[in-house]
Amino acid sequence: MNPPRTDARRRHDPAARGFASDNYAGAHPEVLAALALANGGHQVAYGEDDYTAHLQQVVRGHFGPTAEAFPVFNGTGANVVALQAVTDRWGAVICAESAHIHVDEGGAPERVGGLKLLTVPTPDGKLTPELIDRQAYGWDDEHRAMPQVVSITQSTELGTLYTPEEIRAICDHAHAHGMTVHLDGSRIANAAASLDVPMRTFTNAAGVDLLSLGGTKNGALFGEAVVVINQDAVRRMKHLRKLSMQLASKMRFVSVQLEALLAKDLWLRNARHANEMAGRLAEGVRAVDGVEILYPVQANAVFARLPHAVSERLQKRFRFYFWDETAGDVRWMCAFDTTEDDVDAFVAALKEEMAVR
Amino acid sequence: MNPPRTDARRRHDPAARGFASDNYAGAHPEVLAALALANGGHQVAYGEDDYTAHLQQVVRGHFGPTAEAFPVFNGTGANVVALQAVTDRWGAVICAESAHIHVDEGGAPERVGGLKLLTVPTPDGKLTPELIDRQAYGWDDEHRAMPQVVSITQSTELGTLYTPEEIRAICDHAHAHGMTVHLDGSRIANAAASLDVPMRTFTNAAGVDLLSLGGTKNGALFGEAVVVINQDAVRRMKHLRKLSMQLASKMRFVSVQLEALLAKDLWLRNARHANEMAGRLAEGVRAVDGVEILYPVQANAVFARLPHAVSERLQKRFRFYFWDETAGDVRWMCAFDTTEDDVDAFVAALKEEMAVR
Amino acid sequence: MNPPRTDARRRHDPAARGFASDNYAGAHPEVLAALALANGGHQVAYGEDDYTAHLQQVVRGHFGPTAEAFPVFNGTGANVVALQAVTDRWGAVICAESAHIHVDEGGAPERVGGLKLLTVPTPDGKLTPELIDRQAYGWDDEHRAMPQVVSITQSTELGTLYTPEEIRAICDHAHAHGMTVHLDGSRIANAAASLDVPMRTFTNAAGVDLLSLGGTKNGALFGEAVVVINQDAVRRMKHLRKLSMQLASKMRFVSVQLEALLAKDLWLRNARHANEMAGRLAEGVRAVDGVEILYPVQANAVFARLPHAVSERLQKRFRFYFWDETAGDVRWMCAFDTTEDDVDAFVAALKEEMAVR
Amino acid sequence: MNPPRTDARRRHDPAARGFASDNYAGAHPEVLAALALANGGHQVAYGEDDYTAHLQQVVRGHFGPTAEAFPVFNGTGANVVALQAVTDRWGAVICAESAHIHVDEGGAPERVGGLKLLTVPTPDGKLTPELIDRQAYGWDDEHRAMPQVVSITQSTELGTLYTPEEIRAICDHAHAHGMTVHLDGSRIANAAASLDVPMRTFTNAAGVDLLSLGGTKNGALFGEAVVVINQDAVRRMKHLRKLSMQLASKMRFVSVQLEALLAKDLWLRNARHANEMAGRLAEGVRAVDGVEILYPVQANAVFARLPHAVSERLQKRFRFYFWDETAGDVRWMCAFDTTEDDVDAFVAALKEEMAVR
Repeated sequence: MNPPRTDARRRHDPAARGFASDNYAGAHPEVLAALALANGGHQVAYGEDDYTAHLQQVVRGHFGPTAEAFPVFNGTGANVVALQAVTDRWGAVICAESAHIHVDEGGAPERVGGLKLLTVPTPDGKLTPELIDRQAYGWDDEHRAMPQVVSITQSTELGTLYTPEEIRAICDHAHAHGMTVHLDGSRIANAAASLDVPMRTFTNAAGVDLLSLGGTKNGALFGEAVVVINQDAVRRMKHLRKLSMQLASKMRFVSVQLEALLAKDLWLRNARHANEMAGRLAEGVRAVDGVEILYPVQANAVFARLPHAVSERLQKRFRFYFWDETAGDVRWMCAFDTTEDDVDAFVAALKEEMAVR
Repeated sequence: MNPPRTDARRRHDPAARGFASDNYAGAHPEVLAALALANGGHQVAYGEDDYTAHLQQVVRGHFGPTAEAFPVFNGTGANVVALQAVTDRWGAVICAESAHIHVDEGGAPERVGGLKLLTVPTPDGKLTPELIDRQAYGWDDEHRAMPQVVSITQSTELGTLYTPEEIRAICDHAHAHGMTVHLDGSRIANAAASLDVPMRTFTNAAGVDLLSLGGTKNGALFGEAVVVINQDAVRRMKHLRKLSMQLASKMRFVSVQLEALLAKDLWLRNARHANEMAGRLAEGVRAVDGVEILYPVQANAVFARLPHAVSERLQKRFRFYFWDETAGDVRWMCAFDTTEDDVDAFVAALKEEMAVR
Repeated sequence: MNPPRTDARRRHDPAARGFASDNYAGAHPEVLAALALANGGHQVAYGEDDYTAHLQQVVRGHFGPTAEAFPVFNGTGANVVALQAVTDRWGAVICAESAHIHVDEGGAPERVGGLKLLTVPTPDGKLTPELIDRQAYGWDDEHRAMPQVVSITQSTELGTLYTPEEIRAICDHAHAHGMTVHLDGSRIANAAASLDVPMRTFTNAAGVDLLSLGGTKNGALFGEAVVVINQDAVRRMKHLRKLSMQLASKMRFVSVQLEALLAKDLWLRNARHANEMAGRLAEGVRAVDGVEILYPVQANAVFARLPHAVSERLQKRFRFYFWDETAGDVRWMCAFDTTEDDVDAFVAALKEEMAVR
Repeated sequence: MNPPRTDARRRHDPAARGFASDNYAGAHPEVLAALALANGGHQVAYGEDDYTAHLQQVVRGHFGPTAEAFPVFNGTGANVVALQAVTDRWGAVICAESAHIHVDEGGAPERVGGLKLLTVPTPDGKLTPELIDRQAYGWDDEHRAMPQVVSITQSTELGTLYTPEEIRAICDHAHAHGMTVHLDGSRIANAAASLDVPMRTFTNAAGVDLLSLGGTKNGALFGEAVVVINQDAVRRMKHLRKLSMQLASKMRFVSVQLEALLAKDLWLRNARHANEMAGRLAEGVRAVDGVEILYPVQANAVFARLPHAVSERLQKRFRFYFWDETAGDVRWMCAFDTTEDDVDAFVAALKEEMAVR
């Protein structure tokens, strides 16, 4: 059987992989196959299709009977839609200084949502009730944007994890102050795989009110969903999604990707594999003298400190990013398609470059 | 050869089609095939990939050497990014009262862009220099949001077309007043197909400064692009796209779809076919007594007025929307996958229902 | 007794008056005297002072026991704070095409409030239930900004008035659709004076939920208040006022001005006088052949159509504005300090200039 | 001569003063007298009056021939208008973590201006080139809101001062990175008085591009101005002021207050007196065992640490605020009308309460 003709051409080396980001990877073949299934014929646009309807069942399987998924395009979109849903015009968001919403979303929370972010420095990307308290005050003071929501990230930007108990403590604390809790789950699959618990264990069961459920970094072409667990905390999600420009007309193609990931265990297989590759990488790196691993390697990221010149030479062989160039800190990410050979070759190259200096 | 396994299931009838919207259709198989080509291996995220690079060439082939494409997720996103690029904080947009940005974007231009829309009623969805002048004044008056851009739609929301000369007159007029011109080209392919001219004839050559180039309604799964023709009119497009939450991380999958459509003639084949089906439909409808066609059928839309009860019965057989329920106006859209049989069956059904009343 | 020394100098002719706007007038001497009373000593800032506390009593005297006043700086501020209070992020405002919020606020409702205005053309600046219905639909449709509030102006920008019954009909209609009603009362005093009823007759008693209460055009130096009548319709007014940059630190100086106007009858004396002067002006103008009065003269504004050249000559003798320069329409406003001699001199001049042509 | 009648009543004790804030004070009598001078007759609204025209001369006297003043209502308004003027939609503002724009403006910079604030912790409220560098990077990175302006406060929220040389170093550094410099001069008079230099010495001469010039805390009823020094750095200030709802219709009453303060030396007399009272207070406090003064007392504020219970008892006798209640830190502000007796009585009371514990 011949593949359908297309005027597009392959322009890249499908065997090239690096450690720059889990969104450098493409889509998992099963996700791509799902698109073909959903194609053909007419389906109602803007979310009234059969795939989006079914996705609700899938999501309720993961997050319980109150859960509702609102597919969106990307992670920034998911976060900003979710945060708008739990804040008023006068609202503010408490988050870690390292949070994606603060450092990597180009000001979208402020610009699109009008949201003030009240940030707290953390040692490892994780908030605690005590850290939250540095910003959790002044609800009646109109001179201060009102803290209405705590946003945590699981797994964090630093590749670390909250235990379910830690999240429970945060949620209890936030709720006691009348705040809701949002979880940025761009890499929630990696967290569940690493903790070896269902996602609901550290969301629903821990008190999380709503979350951004990541698809892109888990093997989709694109596509995330805002998942509302506590329906009382939100209103008019569909309106918020639309005015935030995150409403897909042919939504079936977002929903079916999420179905492909979440219906059985593809989400978990992908995440587990990426985590294992990061673990293998960390193990390899630990054996190299002069390279320091900076945070516990609990998901699919390895942060390390090594001589700047070594990193620069290594970057000519494998793509990755400096995290803090002054300090010599780098980030190495593993993806669902990272292979053992990729990791071993990288560790070998690291050893070589470290030896040269 | 077996297709890749996927945990997703087919949940719809791929033979079901209606006349509700061109975004009820799925993706063209050639577009889907292109996704597979672009998959595999690692590609730099956020637009630094080889497919997005090549898309620039493709787009310059259509829109000349100054053109630059900024792939985005959807039409509202394209429009709001484009309009922000040509306005200041104090800017306003002159558009037809029927414009998509005014009636169908959930307030995103106002909410996300802070843009005031200065609307003008039109008989057929088309602005003219004279109509523009109803809002084109008061540039020095701080009490008035400043008209900085004229936004036109081609083909219009009413299925009508501007001639290249009409657009040229609008652009000359707008430029003479120091305003730029944006073209909402959600259905630009249908316009080019119907006018039987290259897209550049009624964009570059007519003086359009930037446009929203539609992919979704032309056969993509999703994906549009802001195409900047006049580089002097804009700044920092990438920042605007990011803060507007329209930046795809795995952008290769947007770009390769646009390549599949635009590299050769798929865009034109799809549009031409949809237009032809609308023409066939109009022809069929004209033969039915008591049904009035409301606007010239110049692209892939047919607007008609018929007895309300007839429409309601017909809607039980084929999906379509009322446009103005009070007046009894309906909209019938054809897509790239609409067949002659679909049209003929619909016309036959219309005849039957008209006979019943 | 000598006035206190000041390094400022008088730089204008305190006898010069025109017909350009009621905000060309200064402050009523009784208002100025009130400032001196409120001066001296320390008073808690940001509204916790004794004058703002007392203002609540004064306002409840006018608008009933549920009323609460939030002093702000200016009319645009009052309107945008009020409208934000009764809309969600997805909300829209139905208003007349001639409304101040649409034509004279520089896009602040859109830019600051993120509000979409759904405008309706009117013959005389007044909405009706039927006119409201042109925009009152689509509450469940996320593609449309949701109509959540109807904003009317009393007296209108065209110097016309709603009867209490007309406002009652609008409020009933709006409430039946789940919308609230805001009244832009920048010139509410003129309306009450002309209708010869208490302000509550066409606000509380008619169903208005909240209003912008004008002070500036009624004889204050500056200062308005958002008056909330229906407390259930709003939340966190103080936060909204602050984030909208309308919170005065030395609020006693806003509140005492409003007290000076509203405590007894200064508001009514000022408004009645301005209205009488407009009436006298209209009477005089009606006696001049070739000058057409355009709208019923029901408050302190006279709109007229006369030969353009006549207007231009007249403008060299008295300040006033064209309303629609193409049509030859002009606006003549009377203020609390307009004198009978001013009016008579103006009418005489008009006669002279009409005779010349 | 009798004062003009007014229906307002005196409701407070004009002899009561405390140490809570310099905006608890009223207006200087010379400022009040200036209002009367500007009253009467008609003056063009919205800034085309003779007082606003003259204010330009006064301001140029202080800030040189390129300076232009845009009177606004309040400090938040001045700051947000100024910061919008020097940022694009994608722009961010670098400021101290203690900056008023970050902690006391209710999120207005984010909500109204769409601005992201990039904050830096400081020991004393003062930025330095090194501290600025913690946030000054990533101009080409669309994932980061672009640092376009550095905002400093003089005197700072902690009552400390920048030397002219320190500001020059900041401006040189900012300009070298293509950023502009904004100075929040809510208490600029106190700074100039303390440094004993003209205001231009640490603004124009140091490279500041634009500033918020405070009137309210210096003895006005209300009223500040954005003063633009570097005209190339801004565009359309009038439009920005209007859409930010900071345009006074009867602007003469703002401008004449600023004239009263700035035309001769009232601004300096008021500021110098407030500073002297703070100095006297600090001296008195230093003699009290167990009370620690936290920052250099360089303007009109004294920050101290003392036992919480003592503060609470003292607050029953004199109004003042906790700054950090957990730490036991308090703020004592002196105003233009604070007397030596006020200070001495306060110090005596402090001694008494410290003795009790």
